[in-house]
Amino acid sequence: MSSEVICAISTPPGMGAIAVIRLSGEGSVALVDSLFQAASGKKLESQPSHTVHFGRISDAEELLDEVLVTLFRGSRSFTGEESVEISCHGSPYIQQRLMELLIRQGARMAEAGEFTRRAFRNGKFDLSQAEAVADLIASTSRASHRVAMNQMRGGFARKLALLRDKLLQFVSLIELELDFSEEDVEFASREKLSELTNEIEQEIQTLAHSFRLGNAIKSGIPVAIIGETNVGKSTLLNLLLNEEKAIVSEIHGTTRDVIEDTVNIGGVTFRFIDTAGIRQTSDAIETLGIERTFRKIEQASIVLWMIDMTTPRGQIEDLAASILPKLKDKQVILLFNKADLIPDEQRADFATLLPALNAERLFISAKRQQNTDKLQELLVKAAAIPFIGEEDVIVTNLRHYASLNNALTAIRRVKEGIETGITHDFLSQDIRECMFYLGEITGQISTEEILGNIFSKFCIGK
Amino acid sequence: MSSEVICAISTPPGMGAIAVIRLSGEGSVALVDSLFQAASGKKLESQPSHTVHFGRISDAEELLDEVLVTLFRGSRSFTGEESVEISCHGSPYIQQRLMELLIRQGARMAEAGEFTRRAFRNGKFDLSQAEAVADLIASTSRASHRVAMNQMRGGFARKLALLRDKLLQFVSLIELELDFSEEDVEFASREKLSELTNEIEQEIQTLAHSFRLGNAIKSGIPVAIIGETNVGKSTLLNLLLNEEKAIVSEIHGTTRDVIEDTVNIGGVTFRFIDTAGIRQTSDAIETLGIERTFRKIEQASIVLWMIDMTTPRGQIEDLAASILPKLKDKQVILLFNKADLIPDEQRADFATLLPALNAERLFISAKRQQNTDKLQELLVKAAAIPFIGEEDVIVTNLRHYASLNNALTAIRRVKEGIETGITHDFLSQDIRECMFYLGEITGQISTEEILGNIFSKFCIGK
Repeated sequence: MSSEVICAISTPPGMGAIAVIRLSGEGSVALVDSLFQAASGKKLESQPSHTVHFGRISDAEELLDEVLVTLFRGSRSFTGEESVEISCHGSPYIQQRLMELLIRQGARMAEAGEFTRRAFRNGKFDLSQAEAVADLIASTSRASHRVAMNQMRGGFARKLALLRDKLLQFVSLIELELDFSEEDVEFASREKLSELTNEIEQEIQTLAHSFRLGNAIKSGIPVAIIGETNVGKSTLLNLLLNEEKAIVSEIHGTTRDVIEDTVNIGGVTFRFIDTAGIRQTSDAIETLGIERTFRKIEQASIVLWMIDMTTPRGQIEDLAASILPKLKDKQVILLFNKADLIPDEQRADFATLLPALNAERLFISAKRQQNTDKLQELLVKAAAIPFIGEEDVIVTNLRHYASLNNALTAIRRVKEGIETGITHDFLSQDIRECMFYLGEITGQISTEEILGNIFSKFCIGK
Repeated sequence: MSSEVICAISTPPGMGAIAVIRLSGEGSVALVDSLFQAASGKKLESQPSHTVHFGRISDAEELLDEVLVTLFRGSRSFTGEESVEISCHGSPYIQQRLMELLIRQGARMAEAGEFTRRAFRNGKFDLSQAEAVADLIASTSRASHRVAMNQMRGGFARKLALLRDKLLQFVSLIELELDFSEEDVEFASREKLSELTNEIEQEIQTLAHSFRLGNAIKSGIPVAIIGETNVGKSTLLNLLLNEEKAIVSEIHGTTRDVIEDTVNIGGVTFRFIDTAGIRQTSDAIETLGIERTFRKIEQASIVLWMIDMTTPRGQIEDLAASILPKLKDKQVILLFNKADLIPDEQRADFATLLPALNAERLFISAKRQQNTDKLQELLVKAAAIPFIGEEDVIVTNLRHYASLNNALTAIRRVKEGIETGITHDFLSQDIRECMFYLGEITGQISTEEILGNIFSKFCIGK
């Protein structure tokens, strides 16, 4: 396999105090050595792995920068091959000039994810771990960070390897039976195989089920804020979003793209779904508005239903008649807004409103920011993200989820086959199919196309 | 002096493959050691300078990231004091968590420029070199990069130190004369002192004069594009700006802020000054528009005067009558636009237009991008940025320029004093004043306020 020298700017784009350019591949050290004058006067070639050297990089006669060069020799690098990191001044101009120089000197601009792809190719980790690197970089909450970290550290990979090993043992015995098919021996106990398939079905199912949680953790718990127009939805949304934006950008200029309409509250990422306000004409609710809102509710796990406390009670109940049936299986929080405009003694009336609805009820004033801290607590409670221990495996990747579902179908066919007593060869084929799908996740089974697809979503320089 | 441990994210803000957090100050290594589990199992404390270590950083039981830690011991670091660099995954969440952890562990968030300020305090370089670090990071062209690099490497500092040394020798002799004032001896030859002051005046003047060039290099050569409305100014401007923007953002997502209306052409930064088109009502030129344009012309070194070739000649000459007097001392390029709409044989008429104006003349079509490459060549030629050698000192900093002007006034007073034969003590005072202003530049003379002012303009993490 080719191991040409690749290079990329690995730090975030733009201006900073320092930037890091990474090279990997056989010859990286020699390539940098040809451009680098160490302050010590020594050549990099003679230096050991994991050492740092100060000096200058020049383009012919022109001094480009004073840099630190770090060497990683042999397989003791992230990629598992000779690598170099150049830490330069964080000027976009200098970064660009250095990249041009390295490319002129024979390095190739790395493709997105190519460093991680090489690490995978060189056996530094399996495919699910490589994918976790991208998730780790994109993590924005305690939970998404933890899940990605567990996956990168190989918890998922080990679990899958265990399942495959067990299947492999059995399929070997069954295939041995095939060789002795005329003698009608049974090396693989059908009873034990049946136990094993049950166990494996259970495990794969648990993993597949964890995707619902994993996806919510990764993409944010979907929350729909519904209610009539002018009930205070945007005020509340801005309140929830802006507070966090301020905190985040204080520490590092996170771009708007990243947080868009998601917000981290109490370590949990919530994804707020914008709903157009439902308009009422006298007492007839406009059909179009409510249908649009219904579709939004379907996508949500949590529904924040805002009610303007100054609205006539009849109007609220009319609206409720059409909304209530859509709220089954949803965590609902009823927000009585504009509570500051209503005398306290009238609150009791609202507490008994919509008795059939199983919901948390909270009096707030979005405008005056009254009780919004309490709302944040309720949101975190409703999200019900369980504690994730270091050993817990949560599936967050759609690709893994698809493979797990395919593996589940295959293992169920194995179970059925044992019960109906199908022939060895069909049984063996179904077990092999289950193993195939598990192997897809870890990359034991992979095609260039699959790999290309996965790594193209990485950032450049990783 | 305090050397508490400071920390900051030193790479550009946002998401990337990796990010670097830098710590500096006595105890940095011990601080990181208390949070870090090396894969090798060894403690950082026992490791030598300039070595890199792979391992994990945990917040209590929670694994935060797998990182590379680089050690700089004693004075062998950028800051001249014990330092550590942590290279982590480039997730904003992880960066934030690591920073929080370091701060909880006793480090303090570094102020802008605080690492460089410590390097200055620890004698790693003088103040003008420290300021050059910021210029180097902000450099966007070959010329601004070269000027900043020369200054960082100490060319300016050495030149100033030489001038001060010479002054110091003389002032010592003169002050010695003071001690023997009753005996009327002359240790310092007035003739030699006169020669020296001439020489120093000349040198300071050359440095001060270089500021015009230095400022143009740093901020961009100011270019005004003038002409009537609809003559094609915006088309041309977009053409000049967008081409470069595309190139820059292809390599790294440079923000709009940085390039705004400046553009790098042939290694030179140009700053285009937007001028509102001059509107003509029949043949009377609107007074307001032209006066606004006059002020813009004053700020420019180069004026691109665009003329629509389909405009009646009389109208052009009317306009010229008011513009021409404003173009003295400016490099002017006359652009005959929409050349594609006019038969070639009519070009001769335009070549003889405005014979009194000393200008380059070029036929272009901004819309069809005809001859715009030639325009770029003319711009680079008009900018007349001289070749800057490694030893050339160009002043780019307004603070240095102000100090140089003050030093110039002082040295001229010395000259005058020698000629008019003022007393020793006044002479000595003027020489000391000149030395004071030169020392301000290098930081031999500095106040906390001046330092605070300078370093607060740095980026965080430098």
